[in-house]
Amino acid sequence: MNRINQFNEYREKMNARIMDTDHLGIKRFFNLDTAAYKPGALDSKTKELMGLTASMVLRCNDCIDYHILECVKCGISDQELLEAFNVALVIGGSIVIPHLRHAVETMDMARTGTS
Amino acid sequence: MNRINQFNEYREKMNARIMDTDHLGIKRFFNLDTAAYKPGALDSKTKELMGLTASMVLRCNDCIDYHILECVKCGISDQELLEAFNVALVIGGSIVIPHLRHAVETMDMARTGTS
Amino acid sequence: MNRINQFNEYREKMNARIMDTDHLGIKRFFNLDTAAYKPGALDSKTKELMGLTASMVLRCNDCIDYHILECVKCGISDQELLEAFNVALVIGGSIVIPHLRHAVETMDMARTGTS
Amino acid sequence: MNRINQFNEYREKMNARIMDTDHLGIKRFFNLDTAAYKPGALDSKTKELMGLTASMVLRCNDCIDYHILECVKCGISDQELLEAFNVALVIGGSIVIPHLRHAVETMDMARTGTS
Amino acid sequence: MNRINQFNEYREKMNARIMDTDHLGIKRFFNLDTAAYKPGALDSKTKELMGLTASMVLRCNDCIDYHILECVKCGISDQELLEAFNVALVIGGSIVIPHLRHAVETMDMARTGTS
Amino acid sequence: MNRINQFNEYREKMNARIMDTDHLGIKRFFNLDTAAYKPGALDSKTKELMGLTASMVLRCNDCIDYHILECVKCGISDQELLEAFNVALVIGGSIVIPHLRHAVETMDMARTGTS
Repeated sequence: MNRINQFNEYREKMNARIMDTDHLGIKRFFNLDTAAYKPGALDSKTKELMGLTASMVLRCNDCIDYHILECVKCGISDQELLEAFNVALVIGGSIVIPHLRHAVETMDMARTGTS
Repeated sequence: MNRINQFNEYREKMNARIMDTDHLGIKRFFNLDTAAYKPGALDSKTKELMGLTASMVLRCNDCIDYHILECVKCGISDQELLEAFNVALVIGGSIVIPHLRHAVETMDMARTGTS
Repeated sequence: MNRINQFNEYREKMNARIMDTDHLGIKRFFNLDTAAYKPGALDSKTKELMGLTASMVLRCNDCIDYHILECVKCGISDQELLEAFNVALVIGGSIVIPHLRHAVETMDMARTGTS
Repeated sequence: MNRINQFNEYREKMNARIMDTDHLGIKRFFNLDTAAYKPGALDSKTKELMGLTASMVLRCNDCIDYHILECVKCGISDQELLEAFNVALVIGGSIVIPHLRHAVETMDMARTGTS
Repeated sequence: MNRINQFNEYREKMNARIMDTDHLGIKRFFNLDTAAYKPGALDSKTKELMGLTASMVLRCNDCIDYHILECVKCGISDQELLEAFNVALVIGGSIVIPHLRHAVETMDMARTGTS
Repeated sequence: MNRINQFNEYREKMNARIMDTDHLGIKRFFNLDTAAYKPGALDSKTKELMGLTASMVLRCNDCIDYHILECVKCGISDQELLEAFNVALVIGGSIVIPHLRHAVETMDMARTGTS
């Protein structure tokens, strides 16, 4: 089982545990988070690319992985992902580079079915 | 002269001064920054929305203003801007709210021609 | 009119404008934000001190001002505020110092009725 | 040996090594850090909750673990911890979610004695 | 009176007010902060350049101004400052650009005696 | 193979993969990044110390490791590294402590040849 599967499994297990705490504020936040990426005035593809860019400049590998997988589901190509990576790199600077390495690896894993 | 005009004037004056220092690394960085938003695998509209979202979660008012003005030039509507603001708010949290106020004011100024 | 009154006036005006956009996600986020500080397992005093500390380490003057004013409403003393400032300073480091200056000034303005 | 024990062991080993370097500034910083959480105008419980919230919005898992363990020692309940997690989630946004998963897991480990 | 004089005046006034609160932890932190830039294994010039770079990537204009003024006192040249600005720009990315504009303006004010 | 060797191996493999994508913007950014640390108005030793301090306050372990290894190559002593760690700790606060532990461990590994 590779790191993307491990991430998805842990994410699902802990999200279930969090829902289980039955904290109303936290549950509502999770609903808001899900709703934010639903198509509206902007389509899901654009929103996922925005989420990916924000995750990269904020330097969160788990969030980067999540949004790359969603981008791939939306039919976003490698060339489009690389353009998003480049915008994030220019905005966020060289401190983003370790996360760029991670992102490119995730992109490759998502494509080759090793995920 | 409103705050957007003041920002644009200061930005142009200081960018000219920075170019004037003739520092090769800084000049190249500015070129890279400009190039990152040119249409490629992703169009300018998508890239400007990504730049706007990143600017909001990183909480930089000058960058927010710059990208809102570019978004308006790209023909992005208020409804689309609000969707981007919402994604940034959910990702970045309530610490983004003061910048959301600023962003909505800039959006309104850009529309009413008071800029 | 001092800077705290100006902040409150601008905050109210722009919050009203934001509600006016009628964006469901943004409205829900504002509701969640308000609800988070209501007394529950923790009382409002503790929650406002937590909000203040988080605002200081994230270095947002508007958020610092808002939470200091709420702390004062909750009956939190200057000595208690100073303890919170100290915890934020130790966690966030010297980069917090400009915001500590701002916070102490706000604390003084809130006490002397010049707000 | 679970991850909390590993963290505590590594933390103690490296803190000892850091003290061993005998750098006066660093030693004084560690003393200041310890002193900041001692009961004063605010009690330790409030200070630990403030430290926990700050650690979550700054997204540092090691700091989160440390403060959760201190909170548990202070007699803070799960319901109180969840309230702190919720305040941190609202302030810091969805980028905090991976750290919320980690925090809930640490809370559970601290309770079940698997730590 | 230009903005650097205003900054210095406000800084001195509020630092005095902070000392006046007589909070032991805060006073000790200020002492640690001052001590960190004293010459030791590294000279003051190197330490001020490190402080400047850190202030730029953390995007704090007050801290940038403080360290540029200290750098000038240490005899650091414009060419050396520009090299530090460039390292900060590459590490921190385009989000640093508004602070680069501010920094270059401060550098010029410090040189022309308008400060 | 210790963690520094693993880091170097992964870094080289993924940097090669990134170059392989042949994205012009990303390649140019990597060139700018390399060029920023070449001796110019400031020598490499000073620049690496600036890069190290920035990496610590931005809390990126991979960047910290990279710059410590470069510092060691430049002939920077442990006492000088500790001074840089201290400046970063004071600027960035206790949230830097987990990265200070990591940095001291990396410094020791680099010295004892276990890297």
